[in-house]
Amino acid sequence: MRQINTNTACSGKMSFGRSALITVLCLSASLSAMAQAMGGAQTLFISNEVSKDNMVTLRFNAPKANDVKVVTQMTKAPQQMKKNDKGVWEVTFGPVKPDMYPYAFNVDGVQVADPGNSNIFPNENFQNSVLDVPGPTPLVHSIRNVPHGLVTYRYYNSAELGNRTVVVYTPPGYEANPSKKYPVLYLLHGSSDTEETWTKVGRANFILDNLIKEGKAQEMIIVMPYGRAYPTITKTGSLRDWPNLQEFKKDFFGNLMPFVEKNYRTKNDKDSRAIAGFSGGGGTSLYFGLNNQDKFSYVIGFAPGMLKNEFDRNNAYAFENPEKTNKQLKLFWMGVGTEDPTYGTIKNDYMKVLDEKKIKYESFFSDGGHTWMNCKLFLSTVAQKLFK
Amino acid sequence: MRQINTNTACSGKMSFGRSALITVLCLSASLSAMAQAMGGAQTLFISNEVSKDNMVTLRFNAPKANDVKVVTQMTKAPQQMKKNDKGVWEVTFGPVKPDMYPYAFNVDGVQVADPGNSNIFPNENFQNSVLDVPGPTPLVHSIRNVPHGLVTYRYYNSAELGNRTVVVYTPPGYEANPSKKYPVLYLLHGSSDTEETWTKVGRANFILDNLIKEGKAQEMIIVMPYGRAYPTITKTGSLRDWPNLQEFKKDFFGNLMPFVEKNYRTKNDKDSRAIAGFSGGGGTSLYFGLNNQDKFSYVIGFAPGMLKNEFDRNNAYAFENPEKTNKQLKLFWMGVGTEDPTYGTIKNDYMKVLDEKKIKYESFFSDGGHTWMNCKLFLSTVAQKLFK
Repeated sequence: MRQINTNTACSGKMSFGRSALITVLCLSASLSAMAQAMGGAQTLFISNEVSKDNMVTLRFNAPKANDVKVVTQMTKAPQQMKKNDKGVWEVTFGPVKPDMYPYAFNVDGVQVADPGNSNIFPNENFQNSVLDVPGPTPLVHSIRNVPHGLVTYRYYNSAELGNRTVVVYTPPGYEANPSKKYPVLYLLHGSSDTEETWTKVGRANFILDNLIKEGKAQEMIIVMPYGRAYPTITKTGSLRDWPNLQEFKKDFFGNLMPFVEKNYRTKNDKDSRAIAGFSGGGGTSLYFGLNNQDKFSYVIGFAPGMLKNEFDRNNAYAFENPEKTNKQLKLFWMGVGTEDPTYGTIKNDYMKVLDEKKIKYESFFSDGGHTWMNCKLFLSTVAQKLFK
Repeated sequence: MRQINTNTACSGKMSFGRSALITVLCLSASLSAMAQAMGGAQTLFISNEVSKDNMVTLRFNAPKANDVKVVTQMTKAPQQMKKNDKGVWEVTFGPVKPDMYPYAFNVDGVQVADPGNSNIFPNENFQNSVLDVPGPTPLVHSIRNVPHGLVTYRYYNSAELGNRTVVVYTPPGYEANPSKKYPVLYLLHGSSDTEETWTKVGRANFILDNLIKEGKAQEMIIVMPYGRAYPTITKTGSLRDWPNLQEFKKDFFGNLMPFVEKNYRTKNDKDSRAIAGFSGGGGTSLYFGLNNQDKFSYVIGFAPGMLKNEFDRNNAYAFENPEKTNKQLKLFWMGVGTEDPTYGTIKNDYMKVLDEKKIKYESFFSDGGHTWMNCKLFLSTVAQKLFK
């Protein structure tokens, strides 16, 4: 039965009978249960391991491949793997700085997520797995034995876009205090991400669980919508493309916010609303937030994707009303990594314009690039400044 | 920027500077937002399309590959793809019978999920994407504009296993009726699946939303736990392996059920509890259910993984007490596909023993194999028989 557990098990010509069963096995059955059910034994290998000293070992089964590398932000360069006598490629590297990282295998030029890791990076444009490298002391995104909020997948209907999914975090105690109302953070993903990326890769829920437990953050509801106006807008552009921005704006203000405020115990004043986003969603959060200061007192960009020619559209109200903006916003915050390709535009161009116009903002510069490691850092930093 | 959107973008040797940015792009950034942020244009293609007449077109970018096939249960045999002048492999096939199917690309012997499809099959042993092929009339698992229940990810602590995730479906109206109590279906996944597979591939929530709207099913809570006693038990065996069964049993009865009944408005009598499972989880549901008839009046197996030498352990109480079993169980139901490798054992061996012992059961035989298409059919069929 071992062949059933290799990536090549599905490569043979399929027909009826046993090989048809193998197709089944490869494509939808629970392999080990099936192997057992058919009387065979399962001989899987462990595809990802982190040692106590944070050495990372990754394995990938590709007996026919000529070259397999690990591509990951755990290291600056890809990690060359070596094939063992069973056709399994393996590499050990590190020690790796504690964090949670995306990784994939590059197999003869094709990028593949780790079949042995069910922690998948939710994205519409690439396949990556996610590996948690724990630290000597628990990191802010770690799953600790503290009271946990709930992560709920809800479905709302948009007149323009049909049925939409939104992921909502409610803090610990939300159910136990049926009369309590909460402030709301609207948290937007990047351009090819989905409504699941902020929890599965950004660990937004565990970050807030931990900060709330430590008394560092206010209890808040976090609303994580799908930022693409699909199917009206195709999946092949940026969230910041003008047509998507306009269609998503209709859905956000016309459908999503009313749905959230109808179905959750939300505080509905501007001082109880924040909007933040990463990358393309960061450009969106500035465009939505800075131009709707009657709705949001907190406007936040995480490495916001914004071209120079988008400054005016995103800042139309703020540029016209700098003094009002400084009064109306309790916080205008931007975080960006010094190796992030958006760093130059934000630091040298955008912030310069804001300074010239005397628009107040807080900036936070971290090491690293346009990564979700930085997103976790940005969220855990700014969450401590909200609704206080 | 186009290269950034190809699977080969990460294959070059990485260094600092631009190519380091490319690593970033490949591994965690929102590609299109980044492309925009860096002034480039995005030129993605659509990787999966279903025409109005249910012809399916799939595309995969692999300019260097020698052979790319689609492996899927949409068709009996894999679909050979052809490379166009841009290095994108493509195939159109069908018409495909309306349903929701797993599929993957076999690239020179390596199985790859669709990078352009964020609907991923949650599994610890293989990578597959999921494609919904809609029918002329909405299928029972389709997302319709009806009242939707909630799918909530909750985190409970197990003394033995640490922090565990359980996915819970609450029916439409659960929040609006704070004094109402509900029956509970415990629904177990297959051996290499996760707590997410029953909603993401089995569409358990949408199936119940639709059946409840049509008045065909009772309002119920569905509890979908993670069936592996990890980390005590490794991920390399079947859920039905005796050590996992014993450790999971401790967690299920000692931690999970009390947690659910503490945190949800559950009816806590045996007639308000059902247990069902697929494959390895089906073997588990029979073992848990038939041996705990004081807790469950409904015991259900979907292509239950069970070897002949496991009949006695799974049926210890039932075999000793056939008459009591017939009285105590309101329903003992099994569904299996005629092409399922478990079919022979269940139909010819297990049901024969049950007949000999005069233990009552209902059987449901469908076409097809050990698939999640059958799981959706089994759930939508048996859900109409529960708690009535």
